[in-house]
Amino acid sequence: MPWSLQEVSKHNNVQSCWVIIKNQVYDVTEFLQEHPGGSAIILKYAGRDATSVYEPIHPSDALDKNLSPSQHLGPVDADASRYLAQEESLKRKTKDEIRVEQAMKKRPLLNRIISLADIEEVAKQVLPHKAMSYYSSAADDKISFKENARAFSRFFFKARVMRPVSRCDPSTTILGFKTALPIFVCGAALAKLGHPLGEINITRGCASSQIIQMVSSNASLSYAEIAAASSPSQTLFFQLYKHKDDAIALKRIQEVEQLGYKAIFLTVDAIVPGNRETDIKSPWFLDDQENGTKVYNDGEGAADTNSGLGTAGALIVNDDRDMTWEKTIPWLRSVTKLPIVIKGIQRVEDAVLACEAGVDGILISNHGGRQLEFSFPPLETLYRLRTQHPEVFNKMEVYIDGGIRRGTDVVKAACLGAKAVGLGRPFLYAQSAYGETGVRKLISILEREIVTAMQLMGAAKIADLTPDMVERVDWNPATRAKL
Amino acid sequence: MPWSLQEVSKHNNVQSCWVIIKNQVYDVTEFLQEHPGGSAIILKYAGRDATSVYEPIHPSDALDKNLSPSQHLGPVDADASRYLAQEESLKRKTKDEIRVEQAMKKRPLLNRIISLADIEEVAKQVLPHKAMSYYSSAADDKISFKENARAFSRFFFKARVMRPVSRCDPSTTILGFKTALPIFVCGAALAKLGHPLGEINITRGCASSQIIQMVSSNASLSYAEIAAASSPSQTLFFQLYKHKDDAIALKRIQEVEQLGYKAIFLTVDAIVPGNRETDIKSPWFLDDQENGTKVYNDGEGAADTNSGLGTAGALIVNDDRDMTWEKTIPWLRSVTKLPIVIKGIQRVEDAVLACEAGVDGILISNHGGRQLEFSFPPLETLYRLRTQHPEVFNKMEVYIDGGIRRGTDVVKAACLGAKAVGLGRPFLYAQSAYGETGVRKLISILEREIVTAMQLMGAAKIADLTPDMVERVDWNPATRAKL
Amino acid sequence: MPWSLQEVSKHNNVQSCWVIIKNQVYDVTEFLQEHPGGSAIILKYAGRDATSVYEPIHPSDALDKNLSPSQHLGPVDADASRYLAQEESLKRKTKDEIRVEQAMKKRPLLNRIISLADIEEVAKQVLPHKAMSYYSSAADDKISFKENARAFSRFFFKARVMRPVSRCDPSTTILGFKTALPIFVCGAALAKLGHPLGEINITRGCASSQIIQMVSSNASLSYAEIAAASSPSQTLFFQLYKHKDDAIALKRIQEVEQLGYKAIFLTVDAIVPGNRETDIKSPWFLDDQENGTKVYNDGEGAADTNSGLGTAGALIVNDDRDMTWEKTIPWLRSVTKLPIVIKGIQRVEDAVLACEAGVDGILISNHGGRQLEFSFPPLETLYRLRTQHPEVFNKMEVYIDGGIRRGTDVVKAACLGAKAVGLGRPFLYAQSAYGETGVRKLISILEREIVTAMQLMGAAKIADLTPDMVERVDWNPATRAKL
Amino acid sequence: MPWSLQEVSKHNNVQSCWVIIKNQVYDVTEFLQEHPGGSAIILKYAGRDATSVYEPIHPSDALDKNLSPSQHLGPVDADASRYLAQEESLKRKTKDEIRVEQAMKKRPLLNRIISLADIEEVAKQVLPHKAMSYYSSAADDKISFKENARAFSRFFFKARVMRPVSRCDPSTTILGFKTALPIFVCGAALAKLGHPLGEINITRGCASSQIIQMVSSNASLSYAEIAAASSPSQTLFFQLYKHKDDAIALKRIQEVEQLGYKAIFLTVDAIVPGNRETDIKSPWFLDDQENGTKVYNDGEGAADTNSGLGTAGALIVNDDRDMTWEKTIPWLRSVTKLPIVIKGIQRVEDAVLACEAGVDGILISNHGGRQLEFSFPPLETLYRLRTQHPEVFNKMEVYIDGGIRRGTDVVKAACLGAKAVGLGRPFLYAQSAYGETGVRKLISILEREIVTAMQLMGAAKIADLTPDMVERVDWNPATRAKL
Repeated sequence: MPWSLQEVSKHNNVQSCWVIIKNQVYDVTEFLQEHPGGSAIILKYAGRDATSVYEPIHPSDALDKNLSPSQHLGPVDADASRYLAQEESLKRKTKDEIRVEQAMKKRPLLNRIISLADIEEVAKQVLPHKAMSYYSSAADDKISFKENARAFSRFFFKARVMRPVSRCDPSTTILGFKTALPIFVCGAALAKLGHPLGEINITRGCASSQIIQMVSSNASLSYAEIAAASSPSQTLFFQLYKHKDDAIALKRIQEVEQLGYKAIFLTVDAIVPGNRETDIKSPWFLDDQENGTKVYNDGEGAADTNSGLGTAGALIVNDDRDMTWEKTIPWLRSVTKLPIVIKGIQRVEDAVLACEAGVDGILISNHGGRQLEFSFPPLETLYRLRTQHPEVFNKMEVYIDGGIRRGTDVVKAACLGAKAVGLGRPFLYAQSAYGETGVRKLISILEREIVTAMQLMGAAKIADLTPDMVERVDWNPATRAKL
Repeated sequence: MPWSLQEVSKHNNVQSCWVIIKNQVYDVTEFLQEHPGGSAIILKYAGRDATSVYEPIHPSDALDKNLSPSQHLGPVDADASRYLAQEESLKRKTKDEIRVEQAMKKRPLLNRIISLADIEEVAKQVLPHKAMSYYSSAADDKISFKENARAFSRFFFKARVMRPVSRCDPSTTILGFKTALPIFVCGAALAKLGHPLGEINITRGCASSQIIQMVSSNASLSYAEIAAASSPSQTLFFQLYKHKDDAIALKRIQEVEQLGYKAIFLTVDAIVPGNRETDIKSPWFLDDQENGTKVYNDGEGAADTNSGLGTAGALIVNDDRDMTWEKTIPWLRSVTKLPIVIKGIQRVEDAVLACEAGVDGILISNHGGRQLEFSFPPLETLYRLRTQHPEVFNKMEVYIDGGIRRGTDVVKAACLGAKAVGLGRPFLYAQSAYGETGVRKLISILEREIVTAMQLMGAAKIADLTPDMVERVDWNPATRAKL
Repeated sequence: MPWSLQEVSKHNNVQSCWVIIKNQVYDVTEFLQEHPGGSAIILKYAGRDATSVYEPIHPSDALDKNLSPSQHLGPVDADASRYLAQEESLKRKTKDEIRVEQAMKKRPLLNRIISLADIEEVAKQVLPHKAMSYYSSAADDKISFKENARAFSRFFFKARVMRPVSRCDPSTTILGFKTALPIFVCGAALAKLGHPLGEINITRGCASSQIIQMVSSNASLSYAEIAAASSPSQTLFFQLYKHKDDAIALKRIQEVEQLGYKAIFLTVDAIVPGNRETDIKSPWFLDDQENGTKVYNDGEGAADTNSGLGTAGALIVNDDRDMTWEKTIPWLRSVTKLPIVIKGIQRVEDAVLACEAGVDGILISNHGGRQLEFSFPPLETLYRLRTQHPEVFNKMEVYIDGGIRRGTDVVKAACLGAKAVGLGRPFLYAQSAYGETGVRKLISILEREIVTAMQLMGAAKIADLTPDMVERVDWNPATRAKL
Repeated sequence: MPWSLQEVSKHNNVQSCWVIIKNQVYDVTEFLQEHPGGSAIILKYAGRDATSVYEPIHPSDALDKNLSPSQHLGPVDADASRYLAQEESLKRKTKDEIRVEQAMKKRPLLNRIISLADIEEVAKQVLPHKAMSYYSSAADDKISFKENARAFSRFFFKARVMRPVSRCDPSTTILGFKTALPIFVCGAALAKLGHPLGEINITRGCASSQIIQMVSSNASLSYAEIAAASSPSQTLFFQLYKHKDDAIALKRIQEVEQLGYKAIFLTVDAIVPGNRETDIKSPWFLDDQENGTKVYNDGEGAADTNSGLGTAGALIVNDDRDMTWEKTIPWLRSVTKLPIVIKGIQRVEDAVLACEAGVDGILISNHGGRQLEFSFPPLETLYRLRTQHPEVFNKMEVYIDGGIRRGTDVVKAACLGAKAVGLGRPFLYAQSAYGETGVRKLISILEREIVTAMQLMGAAKIADLTPDMVERVDWNPATRAKL
């Protein structure tokens, strides 16, 4: 029973709401209330094809996971299929799409890219406005975002000389898994917004470079697709956004465990959406750009419809906001044998609590400055933890993320006791700008920078990097140009 | 005996000075010497209609309060009334008025306003130059104004994770009165300069949002008008500028007490006018803009007529400059049963004195940086008070104002012991830009930002916000773009 | 025997060098080697009229003091006199002169001037390039110049409230002499560069405002002319640049003592010229502007003629560079009964030495940042002296200068123990822009700012200003826009 | 057997690779693998004339030192010689060469140059892009480069007054060798890039000014040529980049010892190349400028050819990366009687180790910020060493380099115990802009600035400069405009 467009078009309201995704018809009437992004966005496409807005931000298994089999009504008919294809091909490109197309043709040769800043510069040019807004946005006035990076400027090296470093090995392990460098990919989500292949670019780029990828619960590809793209010896971790319903959370954990993911990073710094203004304002910018005009306020009494929460908000609307040390960690231990890491520790006291709770590691993080504005910079928290509770580093592994853009940043964190550091946005920028090759390029740049810094500091292996090799300065140093 | 314009026009000098306000004739000859704004401005309109300059800065009962009944001479005659109306309708608009009209048509839709900075941006566009100058001006080089806000950038959060926050309640009380958020409207004056409805916009906006308004002695509406606009359950406080004549001050206190105001905030940080240069220079700017030319100095001996003190100066010319702890507080206690709060404490030692004087609360304030340049930032004074005299917080309530523009600012002050914080300029900007709706919008933005920050810090209620949750950093952090 | 131009023109070389100044002929052959500004500049005008370059920087008695009577050869003849007058009247104006003339016509009305920054802004417009370069220049990269002012931004007020201040008296004494404000004019030299009346503008402006003027050894008017312009009750101090020849120095001291100057400020921070690059470069700028072309380097071997030392250098070429505590102070005491103040103390240890040497006061100064780059900011030195050696303030008077531009600056210094503060450049700018009226304006602005600050701090008299009222902050505060 | 171009052109590959340098033919087939700059750059010119790229960066004896006599095949024939000369004369100038030619004609007169910043400004105009990129580049984001200089802004003078300074002598000794000022030329390499005469400009300029030159292992002239250009009484030091092969290193040491060099500065801060991005990107900039177009990325799979390491990388590819205190210093002592200085100490602990190893001195340096980004500023390290280990200064001499641009910088370092300071880039800029005369000019500027600062501080000789004369300030001071 393939469906005609005419038939589908009748189901265009809250009583009966059908949508077409990749020539398949779905009845989403019941799902309207459960959709994390709200019902309004679905109703806008009720009775119509929604593929173009659905695809870049949903993994392929999203509908199957959320609908019952009977709600998948089957394919459209041949006429409909032809018509939709033709519509797609005739669709006028938006100004933003045209800009992106032209920018893609002007990308510099990859061998002229020599720093992460160079990659970010290209990404800024080639990314769709919506993607750039989602990737680059941070909370409020971006102060935590900036301070995450600026913190690194306050730690200077006290290099040792006259030590043998001709053979310098930057490899180490994370939770026992080998890594070529003390870095990992930190659960950056919605990679398809920036590149049609999405997270797979990162997976493939990491495989050849022997870097571990932590996959976000909010990846735009399914966990299975990502696992399938990985090489046999490759390590994947899973970043868990715990659903408030334990049963749903459990299902998610079991899925990734079976897919071969090797650790659970429980996210605790993003239980409600942060106030990411660039992301929230992005659709208005695009509307105004496309229409060439602005709609103005027609009077003071004008209704104030709720402003959106941006792309980010929808992703975590069902997350568990009542996790506790007493309840959540034991439950997690009881349902999985995988190592557990708490992602989002923001102060020394909670690091100690995590240690007492017996987890395998903590990731000191403020979510890249995207959540709580004025959350303490992770490097500063690491420094305080190292100074005040050095014993913690012997009992569990400690990582940080946020603001890392140079090999020297990685080396500083390693000196202060971080087993490894996570990078998020740089990987999104790299895969958006140059796909899988960009990811490999990024890793090779960091490798060169890390090895150079180690050799110039007199360190031939990661274990040679010690706290005495950095000093926190008491003045306000120069920072990278963009900060 | 309605008056002809011809008759009124004869009384155009210091010996006999009549003015017309809203078609009523007043004999202000005796009042000339008492006018807080000086006699010159009245004499400029002697024998003429003065409505357009009088109205935006005087409450409706200003004349009745200051003149004897016999000095109200009665209405103009019908011819005069017609003539004045025609004059008004024919009056050429100034360049500034034209600018404002056009800007009002280009205001963004209210649902695209997502921060207090957005509101301020609109206000900057739509406010008359005089109003913007009065609202935005601050002392000297605006350093205290900027430092008030910059102080918040030095306090970072040390958030707790793994605490239940799905139900988060930001409500609290001020002097026992319920408030939806730990904020209140801080006696911003001359609201009519920015919007024809004036302070009533704020009153109505607060009613529906359950926020307390502190009404300034210098409101551009009468205290009765504002009280009348309030809802039955709504709380109003009164910001007292104490007249140097105790009897006049007493009359003012009794009036607001009878009108149902619930507390007296005695202002001690503005006994003489601050040096607000933008405000002082505003009339010259408007003159030059209107006339298209500047008048230049025609020789070194040219008389140096006294420069004005700006709009602000006139408002407090009769204030009591000899208040003391020994005399003023006991007197105030003796004349009212209302709770007493000292507004304008600027150092720890005076906070302790206030506590010893037995007042119900203090508002640490430097008047938004509008008075003493280089006065200590209120947040820093609060921090020192919290550290050096924690016992004070148990004996009286402590508030701060100055520089608060984000929910995180409110949360920081609450962590350090402030029962609530006052906002002034933001409410003036909101009501100027969007009237009552703007005020509601402002409150809803702060509510969202406060609740988000609390949840991300692991706080489910105001009492969960504790001093250990903020750390004063020893570096110079990034600040909001405009600072 | 009036001289013809033809006769004078023969004496145009180092063997016989005559010049004409205001129609008088002088034989300066012997003086060539003694001229502080070097012989080259005189030889440029040998045998010719030199009035236009001589007059703005020399007091009227400069020639009589330096030449023997026989070297004053008498007047030019009538033809010469006519010819020189005609030449002067026909002289094409330079581009800089034309610019200044036009700028003078566009000066704002004086009653629109409300801050010292406003005055400086006008001065910048109307001053000849040479004068502005001399007045504004400072050592090297102007860092001490900037830091002098920035230091004030680090001291915040901790104001007292609830203190009676309706009657506020900012007057005090300096060395026992009454002053309306705790300020004095700090020996700013070469006032004629900026205004034809020169230092007399300042003298007259101070007379009516009851402010003390310290007159520089390098004034462009004679000490007698300045004394003659003062009112009977007016106080003048003398800033002594001690000549290396004690006899010449003594003559200078005796002259001012007889003229009624009331104190000697011995300058010890300018024994060699500072490196003032703007001043040094000024003649090149003017040459290039006038000629419309630059002369370029014609080869690497081109002779490197000595670069000048600017206007400043010549003034102090004969100063005593070998003064000592042991020798100089006793000598000075032995030759004058006037109070002695050491101007140019730059560290606490030297303040203590001065105290032990029994002088009447010290002026902590780094010469407005014009001499030793990176010399400690005077306010910081005062703060250290106050903290480390409070007893010094009981034994002698302490003043500071450098960077003072606001009433709050004056009040801060007074809080920290300064009996008064000196201002230099602001007075030069004021007299250049508006003559004597400008000087009065400057003083009235400072009076208003000082009184306002005192009242807002709860101080009714200078003695109420105490060290606890300022706090040195540990962050980097905002500074005035130009810093 | 002079060679024809035809014959030479056959040897254009890796099997047989000949090149022509100044009309001489060389067989570099075997040398291809040893060339520090890699084989690719040689193969680009295989079978052809390579003079123009070879000459500016190789000393004249480079080929003889690296090839066996039999590989020097002899001259080209007369036809070839004529042809090559004609080719050279017909060669179209690049845009960069044209720019440089024009800029050289617009250099300011040397007597208008009054600061090192002025010299640098001219150098920026007249230097070829490649030279400027090599000279000015620094590691990563140039933060260490900037901080080296900014560190000086944190040290303020506490000048002494009333001390005899009319006779002020800034001379001192380095390792017992007399110097007119406490400065020396710090092994700046590749001077021929900026001026055809190269390092000799510096040698000659120093001779007449009595300043010691430290000659880099990587000089673009041979050590013999430089020694030959020196005057009999002139002192030269040698900056040793130790080859990983001890035998080759020994040969180099013996050569300079025989040439009369007076000390060995062993470089330990540049054993691997730093990441100098401006230098790396320079060839791409020039290519794009010349060709007027950019080559863009033609697809994500495009091969990522290795990016270069810039001019700097090639110079040190064979350096010893396994030096140790135990092995290298004793070896060096055993092979030379010259004084030994370790160049590149970056922390206090290594200064102490060097002292214990018995060397004659250390040069605290981070290689001008060109190597390890975030290496501690040398002045700060010196300050810590002075405070924590004052005894070290009695046992060996201590120098610093990095960021010195003013006489006050030199004086600060001297106050803190540095026997002398090294300057690198300024000498390269001076000789590039004005040749030997520029070098003399630079020294005379520093002399004037040093003497002025000493006199204003009350110091008549270097020994009068003591640690108490500087104070490290706890605020963020203004810095020179470019920082």
